[in-house]
Amino acid sequence: MACRTEFGPSQPFKGAKITGSLHMTIQTAVLIETLTALGAEVRWCSCNIFSTQDHAAAATARDSAAVFAWKGETLQEYWWCTERALDWGPGGGPDLIVDDGGDATLLIHEGVKAEEEYAKTGKFPDPNSTDNVEFQLVLTIIKDGLKSDPLKYTKMKERLVGVSEETTTGVKRLYQMQANGTLLFPAINVNDSVTKSKFDNLYGCRHSLPDGLMRATDVMIAGKVALIAGYGDVGKGCAAAMKQAGARVIVTEIDPICALQATMEGLQVLPLEDVVSEIDIFVTTTGNKDIIMVDHMRKMKNNAIVCNIGHFDNEIDMLGLETYPGVKRITIKPQTDRWVFPDTKSGIIVLAEGRLMNLGCATGHPSFVMSCSFTNQVIAQLELWKEKASGKYEKKVYVLPKHLDEKVAALHLGQLGVKLTKLSKDQADYISVPVEGPYKPAHYRY
Amino acid sequence: MACRTEFGPSQPFKGAKITGSLHMTIQTAVLIETLTALGAEVRWCSCNIFSTQDHAAAATARDSAAVFAWKGETLQEYWWCTERALDWGPGGGPDLIVDDGGDATLLIHEGVKAEEEYAKTGKFPDPNSTDNVEFQLVLTIIKDGLKSDPLKYTKMKERLVGVSEETTTGVKRLYQMQANGTLLFPAINVNDSVTKSKFDNLYGCRHSLPDGLMRATDVMIAGKVALIAGYGDVGKGCAAAMKQAGARVIVTEIDPICALQATMEGLQVLPLEDVVSEIDIFVTTTGNKDIIMVDHMRKMKNNAIVCNIGHFDNEIDMLGLETYPGVKRITIKPQTDRWVFPDTKSGIIVLAEGRLMNLGCATGHPSFVMSCSFTNQVIAQLELWKEKASGKYEKKVYVLPKHLDEKVAALHLGQLGVKLTKLSKDQADYISVPVEGPYKPAHYRY
Amino acid sequence: MACRTEFGPSQPFKGAKITGSLHMTIQTAVLIETLTALGAEVRWCSCNIFSTQDHAAAATARDSAAVFAWKGETLQEYWWCTERALDWGPGGGPDLIVDDGGDATLLIHEGVKAEEEYAKTGKFPDPNSTDNVEFQLVLTIIKDGLKSDPLKYTKMKERLVGVSEETTTGVKRLYQMQANGTLLFPAINVNDSVTKSKFDNLYGCRHSLPDGLMRATDVMIAGKVALIAGYGDVGKGCAAAMKQAGARVIVTEIDPICALQATMEGLQVLPLEDVVSEIDIFVTTTGNKDIIMVDHMRKMKNNAIVCNIGHFDNEIDMLGLETYPGVKRITIKPQTDRWVFPDTKSGIIVLAEGRLMNLGCATGHPSFVMSCSFTNQVIAQLELWKEKASGKYEKKVYVLPKHLDEKVAALHLGQLGVKLTKLSKDQADYISVPVEGPYKPAHYRY
Amino acid sequence: MACRTEFGPSQPFKGAKITGSLHMTIQTAVLIETLTALGAEVRWCSCNIFSTQDHAAAATARDSAAVFAWKGETLQEYWWCTERALDWGPGGGPDLIVDDGGDATLLIHEGVKAEEEYAKTGKFPDPNSTDNVEFQLVLTIIKDGLKSDPLKYTKMKERLVGVSEETTTGVKRLYQMQANGTLLFPAINVNDSVTKSKFDNLYGCRHSLPDGLMRATDVMIAGKVALIAGYGDVGKGCAAAMKQAGARVIVTEIDPICALQATMEGLQVLPLEDVVSEIDIFVTTTGNKDIIMVDHMRKMKNNAIVCNIGHFDNEIDMLGLETYPGVKRITIKPQTDRWVFPDTKSGIIVLAEGRLMNLGCATGHPSFVMSCSFTNQVIAQLELWKEKASGKYEKKVYVLPKHLDEKVAALHLGQLGVKLTKLSKDQADYISVPVEGPYKPAHYRY
Repeated sequence: MACRTEFGPSQPFKGAKITGSLHMTIQTAVLIETLTALGAEVRWCSCNIFSTQDHAAAATARDSAAVFAWKGETLQEYWWCTERALDWGPGGGPDLIVDDGGDATLLIHEGVKAEEEYAKTGKFPDPNSTDNVEFQLVLTIIKDGLKSDPLKYTKMKERLVGVSEETTTGVKRLYQMQANGTLLFPAINVNDSVTKSKFDNLYGCRHSLPDGLMRATDVMIAGKVALIAGYGDVGKGCAAAMKQAGARVIVTEIDPICALQATMEGLQVLPLEDVVSEIDIFVTTTGNKDIIMVDHMRKMKNNAIVCNIGHFDNEIDMLGLETYPGVKRITIKPQTDRWVFPDTKSGIIVLAEGRLMNLGCATGHPSFVMSCSFTNQVIAQLELWKEKASGKYEKKVYVLPKHLDEKVAALHLGQLGVKLTKLSKDQADYISVPVEGPYKPAHYRY
Repeated sequence: MACRTEFGPSQPFKGAKITGSLHMTIQTAVLIETLTALGAEVRWCSCNIFSTQDHAAAATARDSAAVFAWKGETLQEYWWCTERALDWGPGGGPDLIVDDGGDATLLIHEGVKAEEEYAKTGKFPDPNSTDNVEFQLVLTIIKDGLKSDPLKYTKMKERLVGVSEETTTGVKRLYQMQANGTLLFPAINVNDSVTKSKFDNLYGCRHSLPDGLMRATDVMIAGKVALIAGYGDVGKGCAAAMKQAGARVIVTEIDPICALQATMEGLQVLPLEDVVSEIDIFVTTTGNKDIIMVDHMRKMKNNAIVCNIGHFDNEIDMLGLETYPGVKRITIKPQTDRWVFPDTKSGIIVLAEGRLMNLGCATGHPSFVMSCSFTNQVIAQLELWKEKASGKYEKKVYVLPKHLDEKVAALHLGQLGVKLTKLSKDQADYISVPVEGPYKPAHYRY
Repeated sequence: MACRTEFGPSQPFKGAKITGSLHMTIQTAVLIETLTALGAEVRWCSCNIFSTQDHAAAATARDSAAVFAWKGETLQEYWWCTERALDWGPGGGPDLIVDDGGDATLLIHEGVKAEEEYAKTGKFPDPNSTDNVEFQLVLTIIKDGLKSDPLKYTKMKERLVGVSEETTTGVKRLYQMQANGTLLFPAINVNDSVTKSKFDNLYGCRHSLPDGLMRATDVMIAGKVALIAGYGDVGKGCAAAMKQAGARVIVTEIDPICALQATMEGLQVLPLEDVVSEIDIFVTTTGNKDIIMVDHMRKMKNNAIVCNIGHFDNEIDMLGLETYPGVKRITIKPQTDRWVFPDTKSGIIVLAEGRLMNLGCATGHPSFVMSCSFTNQVIAQLELWKEKASGKYEKKVYVLPKHLDEKVAALHLGQLGVKLTKLSKDQADYISVPVEGPYKPAHYRY
Repeated sequence: MACRTEFGPSQPFKGAKITGSLHMTIQTAVLIETLTALGAEVRWCSCNIFSTQDHAAAATARDSAAVFAWKGETLQEYWWCTERALDWGPGGGPDLIVDDGGDATLLIHEGVKAEEEYAKTGKFPDPNSTDNVEFQLVLTIIKDGLKSDPLKYTKMKERLVGVSEETTTGVKRLYQMQANGTLLFPAINVNDSVTKSKFDNLYGCRHSLPDGLMRATDVMIAGKVALIAGYGDVGKGCAAAMKQAGARVIVTEIDPICALQATMEGLQVLPLEDVVSEIDIFVTTTGNKDIIMVDHMRKMKNNAIVCNIGHFDNEIDMLGLETYPGVKRITIKPQTDRWVFPDTKSGIIVLAEGRLMNLGCATGHPSFVMSCSFTNQVIAQLELWKEKASGKYEKKVYVLPKHLDEKVAALHLGQLGVKLTKLSKDQADYISVPVEGPYKPAHYRY
């Protein structure tokens, strides 16, 4: 809202076509409204087959933008939606992309690659060249596009001013492309803004882990033993939430620095194997895979709760669980299943089928956190659009400049009653920073 | 101790002459012992005229190293000590410097500058060319040295493999010299290791602020209102300590990101002016100057406590207080003074004369934190010495490589009963890190 | 469950007829199952017209007991249900009553009074003798009963061994009847067991306040300012929950001791008037009336959240709000209303129509807390039944003996992995307690 | 101070002679000043041979009262001092006694007993009739007194209006005398005021445990494992302090209710035996004996810290340690000893020789807590003196009436900036309390 008040009147996005690929929720609807309020035209798809809130999609479609998203898409429908959101008709694609996970960016890069190959060799991409079911769908869509317009994605990338990306996964892909020299347009890494990474991961999960646990199970957290796998920002938020709610918290870590941090907060750091049978609530936050395997699950207490708030559902060995001989699944309610092992008759409660439990069992991060993340997106898009002709941004990945990161924070202070102290010129000189900021060096850790 | 166990047998510092300029306390004595246990010869001075613990200096002098430090040096004595610690006789200076605040590094740089000027023009440096009393002493020492050996500092810098520096102030000087192209030898910035900056600042001050308050005043912290000026790492540690002890905490900040962080922890963020008359305990943590002025002090509650744990004593306007017409100073005990204003008859309690209260009123950071900081120094010195001939380090400032930062943490885990989880090759590949670390990208904020 | 394991085999309730008047939820279903598993026959009604979970009622009716309860009873239906649950046919009423709020107890006392009046004067009770709509219904039911059996309630009270009551309100009525000499049978005050009062109020609300807030509004609690009206056990739990979630907490109190306790936890204690316009979340916990009036509401921030977790809905001036000229109510979703004032166009969010928000917006206390409360009920019922012929309990109100309070706690430890230390005979003698407890004097405050 | 402002002008103690037996510290000096400021004449002795602060005793003797106390009394000197403080010359003893531990009360009771025996049988008390060295001294003093005045203590008890006692130990003796019918004058139990028991035990120890640990050992508490033996009010304060400072806390308990409370705060509850070898800091808080035995100590980690903040030094088996064959005691500094076992060469750090570590290693409770305790004493003395002729207080033990307990709290609120909410008459009636309090029933637990 503070963004709209400040930038709305000057219509800085006038003439800009923006494609977004990002969970189509009510918070996203507010983001889209903000982009259009600042002058942009917008087309949107979701970045996850389950995460669309249909009422939010409907309201957005009615008021602000073309929306291609619904709850429970098939993978085929998902990629069809992505392609639709990128297709702005004959004039080529969008000017700017708001990306979450990098799928819109991926589609363009793969499209361009295929078109180049086709131009050189006349060969269409072959969906059967890969075992990955999802990638087969991507190649099929590109192949179909190629038939109707052999320069479809090439024209898109030429028009594109840049992308802003907000997830670890998407950013990782971007840096890999930069390293390989294959990145086709400038990219701003919004994920590593302080006001995104710390807020979304730390404060967001500190809020939404207990929210998801309580909605799904009504379990009293006080008095229980919780294991938090991983003590990065997400893990730090989760451990804090569980500790404050009165649980005893045990952390697993691979990184000695994070392990030491956990210890300095009074948390015990041990491997999963050492404590698996005494834990009431298991939470994975690692962004890695194979954290809790079916062999661990078999050793758990009866009715232990197992959930993931890290990244993909492969943090928990859902495949191993589903295919365990004789295992029985009892759905207590949607997103809350009890799995009973045949030998012990003992069961565990798995939330959200091993996917992100704060999205599956609660409503994701609260609006305030999303506002921080999305303000980063808006500010990044403004920066890209403003500098479209200046050559400031090359085909590289850029972190959002610190003064813009501070701007995002500043836009949120009024609502919370914060009054900042003002630096005098003399003080600013003394610590060698401008009076108006940025106040910290790039490597500052907060 | 873990360092000595691991590296002692191979005597990696064999042949190395190390000069240290760092508070001569019992923790430093252990650092010096470690350096000698790993094969080095050591000469030492303190980096502060008050901070030497004479029993620690005596024991070190007896057992391990030449020590030039005592509690309560004059400034002249201080610089004489620094010069002595650098003087290893005819063969030139030390091979390596352990620096804290950068005074040893400064002396060499100023010495070389003067020698170059002398070689060119025959002119001696002129102590009267500056108003700064301390810098006059530096120039005098250099001038005296120049008379006996016009290449004293030049030979020193040629021999020098490098310096490791552990303070913000010292590091800032190094980066400035790097920027100006005047840095004469490689430098490792130990200050910005995670295991230094977070541990020393955050955990160290979280411990030593209440320690200093309780020793100096016996005040019950619970129920009081504490103002923490600044919410960087030091401020975060201080605010946490006061909140946990049952105080209500108000923060002042100039940086909107840090202000937002304070708010997310339930702290109120307001300017000093708005609340000065309702605060019981004032703590400055900014590293800036002119934070609490005498005009603020006059508006404070009777017996409000005022102290500084940030950096220099100019965070608090001691000069303004001392020269306030009619003010009366009553020393309750050493380092704890009550200052009474003539008009109101109301008084405030100033700790450690406005200097670092955790050093002045307590015993500084506890050994565990210093062990983290000093292990960084040892690891940095080992790295510089190992690579002395490889050309890996140019005349620049380097942050300690992340795998060494993780090494410092790992060396401290055993003592705390931590057991790490081990990454499988498969998992390591999945997140694109080596199995043995480092596990995080350089910009990771912890 | 530990109760059933320990007492089930001996069937201590054999022959006992128990009537319960208590929220018919899934936790109560487990209580009823436990009573029957220990040998009792059971009839049940709810003690609140809204609180019945119909699936719980249905399952109980199928498996364990006669149930007279459904969600959304009219007041008339409510009292009909109460009367039905007390009616065990010709042999008179129940042997024991499990009461919550004292309505079953009230009906019997009013019934006996009417029958005595009728026996003396031949007069029926007159529903029109009172303005209280609910009491009119009570008198009508008694009048109808009187026509068919003029000794219905008299026979009931003669058969009755006693009642155990678990609310502050119900207990207050019992003590008043004791003081007036009108109490007709022994009563055990379960409300003031430590394992009831502290657990239900403190730990229960610490859990269910954030649960209700998050389910109703998805508001991020961190960074907000919460006002907790009252710092008794409920207030202590609520304030702890808000503080731990990252809110800044302000408390209002009338009692200087509780106010001092709040201060010692770092909370600010101020009257509502002083801060009404800066609060984001208002929570009443007083058990008193007229805490937040419509004049306060008009001065609140736009979208301030207002809710009650104390007792009746008169803690918040709902009547004043509903009848405020021109006020507009917008139901966001069931139990979450936005009320907009005509003059300011500013609105507030009221939860659960001013009634208990943890029941209205979440699922009440979690099972663990209810298990503590209900184990108190079972233990009290066992005690009454065991001593039915011994004369140990007169027509008075008794607190549950401390050794039974400790028993309730002990039954819950195994589930949480607690291992107690055992007192030696020598140690027990030293502190003058029995080896097997009770370990504390009656006035101990925990 | 608030007391003096309120009561000073009316000189309520005019004519009263008060004897105190209570640690002669600077806080006590303020108590004595307050008693005299309110009109009393005062004589004082300490209640502990070590606890006198000589500068406080000297200042009091100069300004306010006759003082018989110095640091490091022998037991013989101790009882001589007690006798002197009770001796007000020919007119008999004091009007009122302020007692801590009950020694002044004991001396009078034993004196009267001996005088009665002497009147009956002519026999003097025989110091050799007991093995207890201290009691031999008591009997000797009484015997000597008897020779000069056979009605010395009898006259004392006749004059005495009453005693107020502030320790658990002293109160226990009083209740035993009441039960035996041997109590000679009214007694007010100040120990069980909420503003004494909760504040002194909970908040006092929460402050002074970390204070003592830091002063004695400089240990970093964060990252360590602390065992708190006992989870009463003292244990609750200690556990909170350790948890908040970043330690992991394990509790031992005998009482299932307290154990459950610990669990609900996220603490692990296990017997000492199960964890003795993994603890860094041991703290006894039980008020019982034989909690940590020498066999436990032998199994501890090298340099584990062992201390007592509960009651007597027999919580820790100091005798077993001192007499362990071959054990070596190394005094690191006064009150901090390292004890090394001959077989393992491993040592433990014992604080304050097993006595109260907050008194031995720090300065006891902070003034704010003592102000609460001592205001209770003053208020109790005022009450006894006011009612001296009314017969309100018989020869029994009374808890301070709740409205006076609330008064003590109210007197401390102004200093902390607290503003209370005022109850309306209507609200007061609704919850059946007087508008001006007391606000809670006697059994309320806070």
